[in-house]
Amino acid sequence: MFSPAFDELVQALRRLPSVGQKTAQRMALHLLTRDRPAAERMAEQLTSALSRIGHCRQCRILSETELCRVCADETRDAGQLCVVESPTDWLAIEQSGVYHGRYFVLSGRLSPLDGLGPEEIGLPNLLRHVAQQPVQELILALSATLEGEATADFIQEQAAAFVPRISRLAQGVPIGGELEYLDPHTLNRAFTGRRS
Amino acid sequence: MFSPAFDELVQALRRLPSVGQKTAQRMALHLLTRDRPAAERMAEQLTSALSRIGHCRQCRILSETELCRVCADETRDAGQLCVVESPTDWLAIEQSGVYHGRYFVLSGRLSPLDGLGPEEIGLPNLLRHVAQQPVQELILALSATLEGEATADFIQEQAAAFVPRISRLAQGVPIGGELEYLDPHTLNRAFTGRRS
Repeated sequence: MFSPAFDELVQALRRLPSVGQKTAQRMALHLLTRDRPAAERMAEQLTSALSRIGHCRQCRILSETELCRVCADETRDAGQLCVVESPTDWLAIEQSGVYHGRYFVLSGRLSPLDGLGPEEIGLPNLLRHVAQQPVQELILALSATLEGEATADFIQEQAAAFVPRISRLAQGVPIGGELEYLDPHTLNRAFTGRRS
Repeated sequence: MFSPAFDELVQALRRLPSVGQKTAQRMALHLLTRDRPAAERMAEQLTSALSRIGHCRQCRILSETELCRVCADETRDAGQLCVVESPTDWLAIEQSGVYHGRYFVLSGRLSPLDGLGPEEIGLPNLLRHVAQQPVQELILALSATLEGEATADFIQEQAAAFVPRISRLAQGVPIGGELEYLDPHTLNRAFTGRRS
């Protein structure tokens, strides 16, 4: 378009999630013609984040320190280990404030068709962790999808020997959910798991 | 959220056009957990674009060389000068292939309420240019908005002494445009400027 360096910047911006050619062009133009300080700042922060942010040695969440703040927090219950699929799920649970144990963050869920086996999502690390640490309860907070359920089944099978209790999140009607809009599978779970 | 460096990266990404907090978080997570090479490449290309891309000395379009490729091209008609508001308008005209003269790129259009006066959008440079160069026709390819028209009127007044011919783009029914959906102003222009 304007110059080779411009085109290369557009290609680099296209690698952001849900950014296509047009959006990337608009971003590059904005940065170069209207907000050069923002471009400088982005370059700096990207470089700084890449060098400073790694993974917590224990739970694999993004962290600048060897142990993340949850794993380093002595007041959190080390007997409970909540397994999540991604940092966003970790964040959702942390922000809800309902949980006071530790975490283990997988890199997604089992999906053989996408080439994601136990190794790729980090299951060997999880099993090593539960074999070495005194975990009393493993809470499988995985997606209520086919792949999430398969991943939970797999973990349950492999971890059963090391952990006294393995649990999963309750399934049913979400708060504020109107029954008429619920799918049959959720209604089925809500009936099966009804409480008196 | 996860660490100070993560939050700073999110703040930096928020300065991209139409990127809010949630989108910036998603981008930062994607770059740090799934595509670190993309983050590296973005940092490199931002730095490289900032240092390599400046403005053409003559027409002010983004350029890596002192003269952009249009201004350096001896086969383009130096007697025609097309004034546009932005690099995107420049690009739209170049891609259409209808024009074979030179350009002058303003930094927007006059908008006193936003603090954009003649100085801010680069009109003194344009007037210096037409006073010094043998420009036969000045084509004002500005937006058909109130501010665009005001900018064109202002330029016409100031440049009349230096340029034999000053023209504006034709206004009327766009190709493929259905009459029933046209606004009354456009219909008015289309009637007033009708050709036999």
